[in-house]
Amino acid sequence: MIITRLSYGKDLISETERVCEEKRIKTGWFIVIGALKNLTYGFYDQNLREYKKISYKRHCEITSCTGNISILDDKIFIHAHINFSDDKGDVKGGHLFEGEIFAAEIIIFDYKEILIRESDRETNLKLWKE
Amino acid sequence: MIITRLSYGKDLISETERVCEEKRIKTGWFIVIGALKNLTYGFYDQNLREYKKISYKRHCEITSCTGNISILDDKIFIHAHINFSDDKGDVKGGHLFEGEIFAAEIIIFDYKEILIRESDRETNLKLWKE
Amino acid sequence: MIITRLSYGKDLISETERVCEEKRIKTGWFIVIGALKNLTYGFYDQNLREYKKISYKRHCEITSCTGNISILDDKIFIHAHINFSDDKGDVKGGHLFEGEIFAAEIIIFDYKEILIRESDRETNLKLWKE
Repeated sequence: MIITRLSYGKDLISETERVCEEKRIKTGWFIVIGALKNLTYGFYDQNLREYKKISYKRHCEITSCTGNISILDDKIFIHAHINFSDDKGDVKGGHLFEGEIFAAEIIIFDYKEILIRESDRETNLKLWKE
Repeated sequence: MIITRLSYGKDLISETERVCEEKRIKTGWFIVIGALKNLTYGFYDQNLREYKKISYKRHCEITSCTGNISILDDKIFIHAHINFSDDKGDVKGGHLFEGEIFAAEIIIFDYKEILIRESDRETNLKLWKE
Repeated sequence: MIITRLSYGKDLISETERVCEEKRIKTGWFIVIGALKNLTYGFYDQNLREYKKISYKRHCEITSCTGNISILDDKIFIHAHINFSDDKGDVKGGHLFEGEIFAAEIIIFDYKEILIRESDRETNLKLWKE
């Protein structure tokens, strides 16, 4: 288990990836709180079976961000979902693609097994082998 | 600690229960991300002291779902709260009763002690014995 | 790791602090679900570099509350972010200052290292020393 902070101005996904590489974590779970300057998030269209991306070009609080680390195509892959709030407290969220860090604190739980993602026919997502 | 995925088309609460039974986890905590096809969630009316149930018959992202496992009436009982988003990124949430899984990834932390729920007079909820 | 419940009528932040003091946890991470009677939460204005506080004087579900424990000015300091829902399932959230507990269940992960907060020039927040 690691608790640390991520760097100002960097991308939340890349920074999480960097910490995992540094600490040699190949599979695990994480939680982040903090604030972002802007982000790209999304909604998976279960009929079209593709992500719809949404851009949010404002400051926000990360009210919760949680996800996991596993292996896709021999590389570390971060899967994260986020809730974030604006200055009125209204919350939006979805699958997180990118987010520029203002401040971010993270806990990472490393897992003893290595989970590998591969294409899943039913959902068209990259899911863990069963 | 277990990290795994839950099965397509099944109910999120029952699936979490099934994994706990398989792994012989009687008390613990979990976090889920993924997507649902529809769900029933609720709000606890603190005056009437009963749940108001709300039905959501659309596709959504699970932006966060967290809860715990403990014993109620000699059986495993799952208590979960959820935030979920629609295709515009708007988030709703509450106490989760049921949710049909499109995709779901879970981490479960098992706890060394066994926690047992029983009726609490003040709230009319089933809470852990103190 | 500790799983327990917090006391009815008390403040969520103070109660988390109390449990950490009792269990001698100086650094860690936690997750809470439950319900509150009212709360004060906030949004960090990244330009003015100060919190804007918002008061919510109604009953709500804690759809997720997660944060960490570390040391600020030689004392335990709780940093928590929250999402909460109303009786229609609408979710609001931000940085949690205070919340009166109706019911609350918590998991706390204690961390082997001690993290200390100090002023950060870039953000004007109290962040962990790097």
